[in-house]
Amino acid sequence: MKLYGHPISTCTRKVLFTAQEKGHKLELVVVDLAKGEHKSADHLSRQPFGQVPALDDGGFALYESRAIARYLDEVLSGPKLTPSDAKGRALMEQWLSVETSNFTPHAMKIVHQRLFNPMRGQPCDEAVVAEATKPTGRALDVIDRQLGKTRYLAGSQFTLADLTYVPYLEYLVASKAGDLVEARRNVARWWSELSARPAWKAVTGK
Amino acid sequence: MKLYGHPISTCTRKVLFTAQEKGHKLELVVVDLAKGEHKSADHLSRQPFGQVPALDDGGFALYESRAIARYLDEVLSGPKLTPSDAKGRALMEQWLSVETSNFTPHAMKIVHQRLFNPMRGQPCDEAVVAEATKPTGRALDVIDRQLGKTRYLAGSQFTLADLTYVPYLEYLVASKAGDLVEARRNVARWWSELSARPAWKAVTGK
Repeated sequence: MKLYGHPISTCTRKVLFTAQEKGHKLELVVVDLAKGEHKSADHLSRQPFGQVPALDDGGFALYESRAIARYLDEVLSGPKLTPSDAKGRALMEQWLSVETSNFTPHAMKIVHQRLFNPMRGQPCDEAVVAEATKPTGRALDVIDRQLGKTRYLAGSQFTLADLTYVPYLEYLVASKAGDLVEARRNVARWWSELSARPAWKAVTGK
Repeated sequence: MKLYGHPISTCTRKVLFTAQEKGHKLELVVVDLAKGEHKSADHLSRQPFGQVPALDDGGFALYESRAIARYLDEVLSGPKLTPSDAKGRALMEQWLSVETSNFTPHAMKIVHQRLFNPMRGQPCDEAVVAEATKPTGRALDVIDRQLGKTRYLAGSQFTLADLTYVPYLEYLVASKAGDLVEARRNVARWWSELSARPAWKAVTGK
């Protein structure tokens, strides 16, 4: 299996993390985002929106990181990252949707301003950060209440629903917004556990 | 099973449509959005983000429309709306992610301006429409290429990946943006088939 992506892309990391949790290592083919390779005809034939990552599993082409993560969990050997019962799967999907719709779009606005803009020599707009902090905090409040009841989001099992938050949380903490995590006791405990997972450390090299 | 939602909400319709395709009718408990009932303590206990819909399946609480749709497909009798093989399921998930991330956020900007704002006595900002038309069209271009190869998005089977686009397409067409659909031959054919499904007509009452 080949994964076309970039080592600092959150969506690429999400897929590499999934494979590592299953005990596998994907062959990463680097798409040079700085050179605009993700908008090349070559890459557009794999990912028509010009985004990363894209999977090639022996000729089977698949994109969208959360779809790839679910697929790898199904077809690779190793620990299951999806609950075995319908209600557990439903709760995993609920928290995956919360990540996609209620958490990540807001958290990434903070990351773009505080982390990515300075890397590109662009200014950080703190008004955007302040605006995005409110809904990011609201999502983390909801997550905190759930994690006061269960160890992981979908219950007692670590699932894809926890895994998908990790690349975004990593960058949020690196964006001097770690207080959003630390101020919430259960989120802080969860993040401490998630960020210490050997599979995640293998992805970040830390 | 009770669904707390509103008959004109796209996400509520998506869930009602799923149940109808399975040959079931959910009990719809109307949450009066105009009166702000979705922000009441009562509703927030079911859906902590104050959105609709939320499912109550004999005490099992679930929110996020795409998670509910997947759950209903699993637990209700009736035709399967999910492929039976791992690659088919992966493709369904890919197109569901495209809907969530690449299509709906843009298409709904058009709908908000052209359809919802006039309903609320607010002006339509055509600059927003023009800006959102580009990425909406790009997503429909990608979809059109796929539908030139397969009858439905994930292959020959109608799946949740097709179903989730329907409530948004309905409103996009009603927003005098039907040319976005009609200008693309395969999308036009697909929309014509989808919008004629008896289960969808049962939801809209048309």
